[in-house]
Amino acid sequence: MVITKNNVTPWLVEGIVDYEKLIEEFGVKHLSEDNLKFLKDLSAKKNIPFHLFLKRNLYFSHRDFDKVIESFKKNENIFLYTGRSPGGSMHIGHLVSFLFTKYLQDVFDCNLYIQIPDDEKFLFKKDLNLETIEEMTQKDLLNIAAIGFNPDKTFIFRNSEYIRNMYPLYLKTAKKILLSQTSAIFGFNNQSNIGMINYPALQIVPTFFEKGQCLIPCAIDQDPYFRLQRDIANSLGYKKNSTILSKFIPPLTGTEGKMSATNANKAILLDDCAKEIKNKINKYAFSGGQPTIEEHRKLGGNTKIDVCYQWLYYLFEEDDKAIEKIKNDYEKGILLTGELKKILIDKLTLFIENHQKNKQKVIDENLLEKYMYKGKLAIKMWNEKFL
Amino acid sequence: MVITKNNVTPWLVEGIVDYEKLIEEFGVKHLSEDNLKFLKDLSAKKNIPFHLFLKRNLYFSHRDFDKVIESFKKNENIFLYTGRSPGGSMHIGHLVSFLFTKYLQDVFDCNLYIQIPDDEKFLFKKDLNLETIEEMTQKDLLNIAAIGFNPDKTFIFRNSEYIRNMYPLYLKTAKKILLSQTSAIFGFNNQSNIGMINYPALQIVPTFFEKGQCLIPCAIDQDPYFRLQRDIANSLGYKKNSTILSKFIPPLTGTEGKMSATNANKAILLDDCAKEIKNKINKYAFSGGQPTIEEHRKLGGNTKIDVCYQWLYYLFEEDDKAIEKIKNDYEKGILLTGELKKILIDKLTLFIENHQKNKQKVIDENLLEKYMYKGKLAIKMWNEKFL
Repeated sequence: MVITKNNVTPWLVEGIVDYEKLIEEFGVKHLSEDNLKFLKDLSAKKNIPFHLFLKRNLYFSHRDFDKVIESFKKNENIFLYTGRSPGGSMHIGHLVSFLFTKYLQDVFDCNLYIQIPDDEKFLFKKDLNLETIEEMTQKDLLNIAAIGFNPDKTFIFRNSEYIRNMYPLYLKTAKKILLSQTSAIFGFNNQSNIGMINYPALQIVPTFFEKGQCLIPCAIDQDPYFRLQRDIANSLGYKKNSTILSKFIPPLTGTEGKMSATNANKAILLDDCAKEIKNKINKYAFSGGQPTIEEHRKLGGNTKIDVCYQWLYYLFEEDDKAIEKIKNDYEKGILLTGELKKILIDKLTLFIENHQKNKQKVIDENLLEKYMYKGKLAIKMWNEKFL
Repeated sequence: MVITKNNVTPWLVEGIVDYEKLIEEFGVKHLSEDNLKFLKDLSAKKNIPFHLFLKRNLYFSHRDFDKVIESFKKNENIFLYTGRSPGGSMHIGHLVSFLFTKYLQDVFDCNLYIQIPDDEKFLFKKDLNLETIEEMTQKDLLNIAAIGFNPDKTFIFRNSEYIRNMYPLYLKTAKKILLSQTSAIFGFNNQSNIGMINYPALQIVPTFFEKGQCLIPCAIDQDPYFRLQRDIANSLGYKKNSTILSKFIPPLTGTEGKMSATNANKAILLDDCAKEIKNKINKYAFSGGQPTIEEHRKLGGNTKIDVCYQWLYYLFEEDDKAIEKIKNDYEKGILLTGELKKILIDKLTLFIENHQKNKQKVIDENLLEKYMYKGKLAIKMWNEKFL
């Protein structure tokens, strides 16, 4: 596949990311003070804490989030859509959009559709067969269900299974998209297989599951798919989707690009035990500290490139004063790298242990069946014909 | 869509067809004496008349029919595959491949898959919606079921419905086909929608419904789809398909191109009544006769361009001596155009009335349900997963 400018496509992110440039190039907007105030007020009204990811500017930009606010104020229908390509080994970065999606579902009290594009994975990965992808899917489903979405307002579906219902909607969507459009956006060429070329239609389909305003929380590199939706939505009688876009969480080994699970040793996986977490952080977490304690005490650490600090800032340290103190202490050399790592290890271990408990609850209470087949929304969706 | 050389693509046939040139260009072979002898002997063994379409060279060429014979002799699995894009108004020409397919099913006593690509129709026809196509489909299904296939060895399926089972097989197929391949064969370009580009995978899928030798009876213009199958079959663990290819039945109004139902007034439809048949033949059947009776008696008629003669020769006059006599009498001016038309009208009326009785039987005995859902093969197919 041809990689577009800036090396940001839905399938590859590399190099240091210049977010201002991305915002300009993608034609999206920063979340405004008004946008944030709306979410803050709504959270307060619902007695839900204003989300850390907003407070710390991890979700930082959007396309037409104002339309979501407008719909909400008019009491019109809003729904959420997200997804995950099966991978089997989910790491901490994979949870970001799911955690934020849960927050949005809670504040908007709305339906949520979670697509598992097992078909996309198969079409785009030369060496993966359907059996392997099915195993990966089963693992991922547990992790996703562990987030604790509303079981009666959430529908989790695998494309390969839900195709039976959504096929007519796929046909209507695919008929509207020209080869020139997908090639331009995704860089397909003559050596792309025809399933890949066709696939963007299937990722757009869930934005048409309801007639209301669809909001998609995702990392900014996923934006192209949903721009394409905006070109065709009106002609099919639907609204253009809105997106709320995040930065990338830096990988354990450095602040460039985004996290990957392809090297499991160097990422914190959701099924890591406390010992593994500790070892990985101590061994691989890219540090902004100085080579020796003496130098660190004298020069201080660089929080801008320190992964432990970044993770605490974006993901784990809710307390504004506490994170401010960590920053100051680290930059002044009062806090050593080992001590900073210890803070992250403790927070991270707690988080992962809690996630694993939630996963066990999903198994014990057979919650996946609710999300996929037996919940209120799931039942409705399995009766939809989309003709 | 770009039209390929000779103006023969699966979607458009026009101009006088040079079959020898097509055979050469497509790289197919004439049915050999040995091929025909095999089918003749097999028919005799099964007590089934050797088919008129073979006797009269309407099915005239093939690709790898020898492999079918080889498989049969080794007692290996053979299965048939055909289909019809929904149109709603089937005419006499549309039945040709179904009638011949029934003959092949009878002599080989094998499974038959009939694909109704309602999805293809929708993707390729800008102005058709799914509802209209559904109505067309329902009409066509009755006509197809009226042919009298073996209800326990025939599976008729609409793509939009059977997609639920065949999706994994579609994915495997689409993954093997490059954009360059479909573009070269079908003339897709940047203005083609991505569903169209993807569609060839779905037409290939049924050739992988069984592990045996797939034989496809079709008109020669359908060949490109199945050539593509041959490029990818082995890599997916299946056999290359074989085709047995027919010429086109000339349309009522002349011997150029193939029949079309778009002008219903000028085609014999399967639900025409006796009076309509008589009127249409008398009014529109392109004649090889002379302008006046006097000239006709003197110069005789031209059977090469006379549609009534051609239809009798290829479709309705089984008796070799009778057709020979008609030819001689017409060419000598003994038989007048009106008399020739009368012979065809009688045969055609009988055929259509018989077809309509068979259709009524399909309704009365709920046979469609057997072909689509409840027959032995249908039940098996609805349990298939193709993983």
